[in-house]
Parts: sequence; structure tokens; C-alpha cells
Amino acid sequence: MPQCDSASTVLTAYADVPAPVRGQVRDLRIRWALQEIDRDYRVELLDVFTPRPDSYKSWQPFGQVPAFDDGRQRLFESGAILLYLGEQDARLLPVDPTARWQAITWLLAALNSVEPFIGQIGMLDFFQAGKPWAKEARPSALKLVEARLSATEAALGEADWLAGPFSIADIVMITVLRILDHTPILRDYPALAAYKTRGESRPAFRRALAEQLESYASPAN
Amino acid sequence: MPQCDSASTVLTAYADVPAPVRGQVRDLRIRWALQEIDRDYRVELLDVFTPRPDSYKSWQPFGQVPAFDDGRQRLFESGAILLYLGEQDARLLPVDPTARWQAITWLLAALNSVEPFIGQIGMLDFFQAGKPWAKEARPSALKLVEARLSATEAALGEADWLAGPFSIADIVMITVLRILDHTPILRDYPALAAYKTRGESRPAFRRALAEQLESYASPAN
Repeated sequence: MPQCDSASTVLTAYADVPAPVRGQVRDLRIRWALQEIDRDYRVELLDVFTPRPDSYKSWQPFGQVPAFDDGRQRLFESGAILLYLGEQDARLLPVDPTARWQAITWLLAALNSVEPFIGQIGMLDFFQAGKPWAKEARPSALKLVEARLSATEAALGEADWLAGPFSIADIVMITVLRILDHTPILRDYPALAAYKTRGESRPAFRRALAEQLESYASPAN
Repeated sequence: MPQCDSASTVLTAYADVPAPVRGQVRDLRIRWALQEIDRDYRVELLDVFTPRPDSYKSWQPFGQVPAFDDGRQRLFESGAILLYLGEQDARLLPVDPTARWQAITWLLAALNSVEPFIGQIGMLDFFQAGKPWAKEARPSALKLVEARLSATEAALGEADWLAGPFSIADIVMITVLRILDHTPILRDYPALAAYKTRGESRPAFRRALAEQLESYASPAN
């Protein structure tokens, strides 16, 4: 298993999170990429509710996970870490310039044109569910999501993956679509639902998810 | 002036937009980058409210702007276009690996950890302002913004720019902060406000903004 205590590649994750977001935290994206290329990594677990010391904020300024360190670069932001790993392995990011830029474009689209809207549904349903206005705000948020899902489904067409071969773009888009797992929204987008299932069926995804969920059963470091 | 009808680099923008979002549309980011490196570009203006033909959606699947074509790559997503331009010119993205990855990390942080929250304020204030729940939803949205602004201000510290020299990370972060221009929010973050002013004072930014605003006075193509 790539998760290994002596690995030189370090990733931060949470020791535990509230039930609705288990399997959703973004270290999953990095675990998945590392599993795809069979690279060993070590996980540093943080308590989700404990304020971070300045030493951590100098690594991850928002105090969140994942942060990443391979002895050469200390990075944060799942998208940046995936780009960094992608440059090192064509199984994550094609080398041919046109294929590469299509994958990078879709990675950015998932992060900046799709996730903000899908994330808003997660925000309303999980973190603001008790607010009196959350229910009223949801139809507008849903409409914005539907426009992005329709466009993404149309762009995917008959293809297996967003940009030619499987890439970091799919890792992001599929983990973004998973934010809707507590809703029936994706049922209206059968090709996208099949695409998500295709990603979740990859052995690397299954190992990554299992390792993230296992860590939630472990004591914090 | 880099905007030039015979240029081989093409960018899409809107022929006009409602007043509150003039000077905010994301083609500004690409114009700014192209102005920083004195590269000529040609603008194709689209009517913001007209449905896009499939030919445009095959270029920009969400039907939005900017889309970009330099004869070698056809791209969309402002973040991806900036990365692409950055790889071609060290004035936009340093070549040294550590400096480069810090800039890429901050570019992604601006797009995925800051813009979604600041964008939600813009959404509530501009596009959902008439909804009965929008006013009630704003304090929660503001609290999320404040956490990101505090973290970004602390990370900036005494530096002029987010990641060493001026880079595409600053182009994104400053255009993201500008989404709050209709609010007094940034007054509580004087170092961030000064950083934004520093970016907006660059001749390349001023030319880019003037060209975007001028295009709103032109007839649509």
C-alpha cells in the first residue's frame, strides 16, 4: 500500500471529520493521484477543530488540508499539488502539449467553474442547514449547479474522461461531483453519473478512499 | 497598445455587461497578463445574453468568457490561460522551481480557496439581491470571506507580492479582491488593500482595464 510511515512524501489530512464529510476531504484527491502512480506517502493527521500553530500556517496559510511536502517542494492547494504530481508522471497528465493543456484547462474548470457552485450546495446542506434562510436559498444555488452539470455533461459527450486519457482533471471533477452524493441531483445527468462511477471504480480511487476512511478510525498524532 | 485587430492571439470578451460587473469580467485577467508581456491580442466580442452556438461551446463549454486561441492551443478558464502564458514568459511565472510552484500554489489558492467565497458575496449582492433571503444569507457568507482575507493578509506579510516577484498569482488574487469593490470589506485588511492598489497601479493593469471598459462602448461583432 502506498501509505507508508517511512515515505519521504508527506501529506496532511484530518484525524477525523463529521460524518457527512467523511470521504469528501480534499486530501482524497492527492491520495488518489499518488495511488495511481504507486508512490509511497506518509500522512500527518491533524485535529480538524484545533487551531493551527504558525508553523503549520507557514505551510498551509488557510490552516486546512492537504498540505504536501516531498523534500523538494512544500505546497498547499489540492489543484496545485495535482499539477505538480502531474508534471512528474504522464499517467496523471499527458506530455503532448495539446492533450496536456486540455487536461489543465479541465482541472481549472472543475476547481473554478464547477466546484464553487457544487460546494455551495454542500455549504447549505451541511454547514448552514440550521439557518432559517438556507432552505430558501437552495433553489437558486441548485439552478447554478444544473447549468454547470449540463455543460460538463455535454462536453464529456461519449468520452470516458474529460480530456483524452484519464488525468488529474478527472480526479478533481469526480471528487467535486462526489460532493453531491447526499442528493439525487446527479440522477438527472446519467452520463456524468456513469463518468463518476467509472472514476470511483478505479483501484487507485478505491484504495485512496479506504485509506482516508481508515485514518478517521485512528488516534490523532 | 497590445489590442490589435491583426494579432494572432484571440481572446473572447463581452460586448457589454450590466454596470455593476463592468471592470470585473475575467477576460481582464488575460488582458492584464498580455499587457505585462506586451503581446498583441485581438478581442472577439460576444453579446452576454445571447445563447452561444455549439461552435462556441466546443471552445468554451460553459458559454462564458474568456476563451483563448493563439493558433497553437484553444483554451478556456482564466486560470488555465494564465498558466499557459506564464510558462512562456518569466515576467508572469518564475522559472526557478520553488518560486514557480509557490506562484502556482497561490494562483490555485486565489481561484479555489478565496474566489468561491468572495464570489458568493458578489452573487448575493448583484445577482440574488432581489431574493428575500439574500440579506439574511450575507452574514454567514461574509464570515467565510473574512477568514480567507485574514489568512491571505497574514501570508502576504510585508511582501509586495504573494510569491516573490509579481506573477499570475497576483493577477488572479487582485482581480478576485476587486469583486469586493462595491463593499467596505477590504478596509479592515489594510495590507491587502495596499496590495490590491499596488497591482492596480501597474501600467499593464491600467491599460487592460481601459481596454476592457472601452470595448463596452463598442458595437457587438
